[in-house]
Amino acid sequence: MIKNILVIYIVLSWLNVFSQIRGFFDSSKQINLENNFKKIPLSKEAEKHLFILTESPHPAGTETDYKTALYVKNKFSEYGINSEIVEYKVYLPYPKNVSVKLLEPETYLAPTKEEGWNWDKDSYDSDIILPFNAYSPSGNVTADVVYVNYGMTEDYEKLKDLGVDVSGKIVIARYGKNFRGVKAKVAEENGASGLIIYSDPIDDGYFKGDVYPRGPWRNESAVQRGSIQYIFYYPGDPLTPGFPSTKNAKYLDPAKSKTNLPKIPTTPISYKDATPILKNLGGKNVPNGWQGALPFAYHTGPGASKVNLKLEMDYAIRPIWNVIGKIDGTLEKDKFIVIGNHRDAWGFGAVDPNSGTSVMLETARGFGELLKTGWKPKRTIIFASWDGEEYGLIGSTEWVEENKENLSKNCIAYLNVDSGVSGENFGSSATPSLNELIKEVTQTIEDPLKGKTIYDIVTQKDKSKIPKPLRIGRLGSGSDYTAFLDYVGIPSLDMSFNGPYGVYHAIHDDFYWMKNFGDPTFMYHATLAKILGVTALRITESDIYPLDFKSYSDSLAIYLAEVGNGKADEDSIIIDLTELAGEIKKLQTNSDSLNKKIEKFASKLTKEKLKLFNEKIIMFERNFIESKGLPEREWFKHLIYAPGFYLGYGAKIFPGITESIDKKNWNTAKEQVKILTEAFKRANNSIIDILKIF
Amino acid sequence: MIKNILVIYIVLSWLNVFSQIRGFFDSSKQINLENNFKKIPLSKEAEKHLFILTESPHPAGTETDYKTALYVKNKFSEYGINSEIVEYKVYLPYPKNVSVKLLEPETYLAPTKEEGWNWDKDSYDSDIILPFNAYSPSGNVTADVVYVNYGMTEDYEKLKDLGVDVSGKIVIARYGKNFRGVKAKVAEENGASGLIIYSDPIDDGYFKGDVYPRGPWRNESAVQRGSIQYIFYYPGDPLTPGFPSTKNAKYLDPAKSKTNLPKIPTTPISYKDATPILKNLGGKNVPNGWQGALPFAYHTGPGASKVNLKLEMDYAIRPIWNVIGKIDGTLEKDKFIVIGNHRDAWGFGAVDPNSGTSVMLETARGFGELLKTGWKPKRTIIFASWDGEEYGLIGSTEWVEENKENLSKNCIAYLNVDSGVSGENFGSSATPSLNELIKEVTQTIEDPLKGKTIYDIVTQKDKSKIPKPLRIGRLGSGSDYTAFLDYVGIPSLDMSFNGPYGVYHAIHDDFYWMKNFGDPTFMYHATLAKILGVTALRITESDIYPLDFKSYSDSLAIYLAEVGNGKADEDSIIIDLTELAGEIKKLQTNSDSLNKKIEKFASKLTKEKLKLFNEKIIMFERNFIESKGLPEREWFKHLIYAPGFYLGYGAKIFPGITESIDKKNWNTAKEQVKILTEAFKRANNSIIDILKIF
Repeated sequence: MIKNILVIYIVLSWLNVFSQIRGFFDSSKQINLENNFKKIPLSKEAEKHLFILTESPHPAGTETDYKTALYVKNKFSEYGINSEIVEYKVYLPYPKNVSVKLLEPETYLAPTKEEGWNWDKDSYDSDIILPFNAYSPSGNVTADVVYVNYGMTEDYEKLKDLGVDVSGKIVIARYGKNFRGVKAKVAEENGASGLIIYSDPIDDGYFKGDVYPRGPWRNESAVQRGSIQYIFYYPGDPLTPGFPSTKNAKYLDPAKSKTNLPKIPTTPISYKDATPILKNLGGKNVPNGWQGALPFAYHTGPGASKVNLKLEMDYAIRPIWNVIGKIDGTLEKDKFIVIGNHRDAWGFGAVDPNSGTSVMLETARGFGELLKTGWKPKRTIIFASWDGEEYGLIGSTEWVEENKENLSKNCIAYLNVDSGVSGENFGSSATPSLNELIKEVTQTIEDPLKGKTIYDIVTQKDKSKIPKPLRIGRLGSGSDYTAFLDYVGIPSLDMSFNGPYGVYHAIHDDFYWMKNFGDPTFMYHATLAKILGVTALRITESDIYPLDFKSYSDSLAIYLAEVGNGKADEDSIIIDLTELAGEIKKLQTNSDSLNKKIEKFASKLTKEKLKLFNEKIIMFERNFIESKGLPEREWFKHLIYAPGFYLGYGAKIFPGITESIDKKNWNTAKEQVKILTEAFKRANNSIIDILKIF
Repeated sequence: MIKNILVIYIVLSWLNVFSQIRGFFDSSKQINLENNFKKIPLSKEAEKHLFILTESPHPAGTETDYKTALYVKNKFSEYGINSEIVEYKVYLPYPKNVSVKLLEPETYLAPTKEEGWNWDKDSYDSDIILPFNAYSPSGNVTADVVYVNYGMTEDYEKLKDLGVDVSGKIVIARYGKNFRGVKAKVAEENGASGLIIYSDPIDDGYFKGDVYPRGPWRNESAVQRGSIQYIFYYPGDPLTPGFPSTKNAKYLDPAKSKTNLPKIPTTPISYKDATPILKNLGGKNVPNGWQGALPFAYHTGPGASKVNLKLEMDYAIRPIWNVIGKIDGTLEKDKFIVIGNHRDAWGFGAVDPNSGTSVMLETARGFGELLKTGWKPKRTIIFASWDGEEYGLIGSTEWVEENKENLSKNCIAYLNVDSGVSGENFGSSATPSLNELIKEVTQTIEDPLKGKTIYDIVTQKDKSKIPKPLRIGRLGSGSDYTAFLDYVGIPSLDMSFNGPYGVYHAIHDDFYWMKNFGDPTFMYHATLAKILGVTALRITESDIYPLDFKSYSDSLAIYLAEVGNGKADEDSIIIDLTELAGEIKKLQTNSDSLNKKIEKFASKLTKEKLKLFNEKIIMFERNFIESKGLPEREWFKHLIYAPGFYLGYGAKIFPGITESIDKKNWNTAKEQVKILTEAFKRANNSIIDILKIF
């Protein structure tokens, strides 16, 4: 018996060693390269980066932010990577005065200070920016208060059913479910005079587990800062939509132009500060599902709580600094990938975003070490340390707007890391052409603690004996892939290790937190750097770019089924998706044929044909870009994905169609079906075109 | 158009007037009778009853309890109904001293007093019985504390997985999910030294809505009293299982005999008093789903909380008093139905149980008024005001044990009302032979506020256009139908109007609560009296007893599917249910034939044949009674229903089979399949036998 087992073992390991990596005609060199690379990213280096990057709070445009830009630039230089600081001048508000006064039936003055803990010096930092919602207007309103749950459209509908009128009221919403900018937009649409957003302990406080400093969750004093820019219209500098905020940029006049700026004063508070406001609310008992974890029964209001909300904002055109590093490719220098992470943080930014910065730097150091051995990538690798992400994805958006032609023509993929590490659970989102790649890469990287590959852990997690599929999310918005994917049509992905994390955008997202809760050993930082680096190398060094259109078209079929399942009601009309469905089916067949051809014949192509082949592969995703953009938001040009207008973070699939259906704009919906069908026809033609190369 | 609508209206109302009532050959007389009856139950009378019944707390065996017995007896006399007080002497504990001392890491002494409210005099009553768990032993234990969620078997398994040892510890469980006696049994099985049970605000406190006195939910001081007698072994007097506690009864010696008495000290506390114990617990963070609504993250312990639990109970043989009223039948005097409700309460008992007493009295008054017009029922009607229900269904159990032969031979059905009214939503549970009857009766009774029949409200409640079926629950345990159904096999039902109700077994379940939250107009009391009375009259006055075996056998088919869906694991063996399934299928066919025969030919039967027919119909349910009882609990003799051993309240279907499977006693399971198959054969034969009458 033992002998048999041994035989099997040998066969398996033989298979393993000699198995081909998709996209490579001869894998051995690549395996060698990857193995050399994987030795380099180190926990202790990642820890050092994070310690320095999180020394001070560093919101976009501040001196401390600039210091972090220099740190990143210096590190690139140290690793032998050329880099430059790319400055944009953009419209940024800083908070001057924020006050939320409960006037009736008792008085209470918020915001109170976020509470520190003696053994965490950062938690006492007085340089931390005031809790505020960036791009809220200044204002001074006094009104009765209404509790609006998560502030979603359906929450306001429910209030209407209950006979609760929010017009003129200050509404108080809890964080969660949607992007805070959507809360501001919906409050504005419903005629509220002001908006207060608080973190309910049921969502990221004690209801989830121990709070800081005992555990990783939000304590009663911690506030979630954050932008409420209406990035679902367009992200980036609010005054230069579609154009970079470079030297001679023309800025819109915020007082006169139609911009993506919110209209009603909005500010965030802690659950400690929300308590007296919510506790004193009268009116109806809240509907099912609206109760949070504060220790009393919630009411909708209005009355008895009356609040004065007074905000003074300091708006100006201010500089931000992307750091762009570059390793030139040898075989096809003009073709490139971008590895990006933002650097600006509301506070210390240990998780968000500098765990990602630290990861990116370790990836860069890894490539730097390879460069020292004489290696050079076949295609160019660009590292981007974005600024102004927190304000509205500004650094990445301006850069993409500035470089859109080159990106559209030559960029193979964009790899994003934002909050890279807050725990041990691997997660990813991607355009489906990258799904297979993520699967393959995670199969080659070991979890640092669990003695299994990341892929095996993610797919075999629970006790049931059926392995789970690797779940890869859909890209909505809320990080820097937005402009790459939605504006230009670059295949994108986003990766991270996640865990219990309740200090998002609070003072407590600091080095102490990471060292005690998020990644005490920093091993997941190093591991993510390996995943990121190997993913990059699988693209830049490939013979055939490892984009997989079969996965993409299979996903499209699933999306279509979801759209087709839309609920009919009396006002519904029939929207014919037959042709669209046919094109998706063709896409499945064509991409299947393509994969088979690649497997059998790609290695036999001439160099010239291979180059042509790869160029065409890059352009596949661009078929889904519609230059006119989506209805009512022309900046968003991708026909398959957009951040949902009323979600903000979440992806809306076939947004032109589905959002028109939501609004019962039947004619627009039909038009959008045509537009999407055309896009799928283009996509089919492009594959047929590629097939002709063989 | 208007004319057409008018025509349709006339046709419909014609259909309505002349439609036959099932079980009656000529409906017009019955409709008349019911209409006369329905005029009698009145809100203001129900309110008066409740006001008097809830004057003082009246636990079983107390002077105030006896006063309520006299009130009920006097009312029966007033209505022209003969009645007697039937006394049993049973083993009852009263609490002398209850103390729960937190010793470490801080000190706190519980229980604190339940808090009153000035405008509700009852809430300050000092005669209220100490919060205690009846049948807890006296005891004095000091130990570290472990939080065990709801104290279910699976909760202890989870703790074991986490490495938390409960042996020797005082465990603290929250109320909910199962019967509190099960919590005590499972704590005992797991080696705990004591048990504290508290009401978490997530289950019936502020998380659900406003708390007393602002709303109907449990406030921080309110305690749920209640028995922990192991009624899943047998209910009634713990010292006389299977025999009535009448004059010459032989009592078991609790110190020497195997009884259904719990072994470890157990006591209930409020969430105010639970807070310092839970807040100071260290150890692991609780698993998913264990967090309650107290404002901190829950931990399992053990440590730092250390508690001394000291209970002094006063056990004695004490009298309890059922009040039994009787209206003799004319046609078949020996045949009877029982309408029952318990009268004893832990506190004032406004909802539990005296809303039901008030309802029963209004039904009795209705029959009394009919008697004055010269009417007499065809079969005998017995009203039973049970005592000692709260301690363990004692009054009803002893009475059933005393009268089991007569019940088995002559009782047509048992109609139970316990907590009759706590709101406006109708609910019922029943043996499925009574399902059709409940449906038919609720179709004839109007909701007092909503201008629709109860049936229409229950079946068309939500916005979807598909009417919902009338949901009728399965009888588990927790009220007085238990002995009727499980010990003798009498078709039973339980009915109520329900609403938000968080003061269960607390001082605040009083007249003020009912008047302000439960049923301010008392109209639902009057309505339930009408439903109860019409249900009774549909049985006692029928030509053919309206028991429907088709519904029963359809339910059996559903039950079988549930059992057949049991999850297989490695230890599973195949249990062949083919024959059982076949018998159920036959039962469906046979009962269908029977219904058809009844519809076509029953009215043509001779008087003698009709009498025989009805006698055989009564006996149908007795086919499911197995004299040897269920494995390990012989008192429970019904093969289809029993309170789940580890549920307590919830019904376990085919308990002999399913509980043997749960315990992996495969041989017992197989035996039980045979026993049940035999029972179904008997049931089939009994229907075939009835069919022969035609």
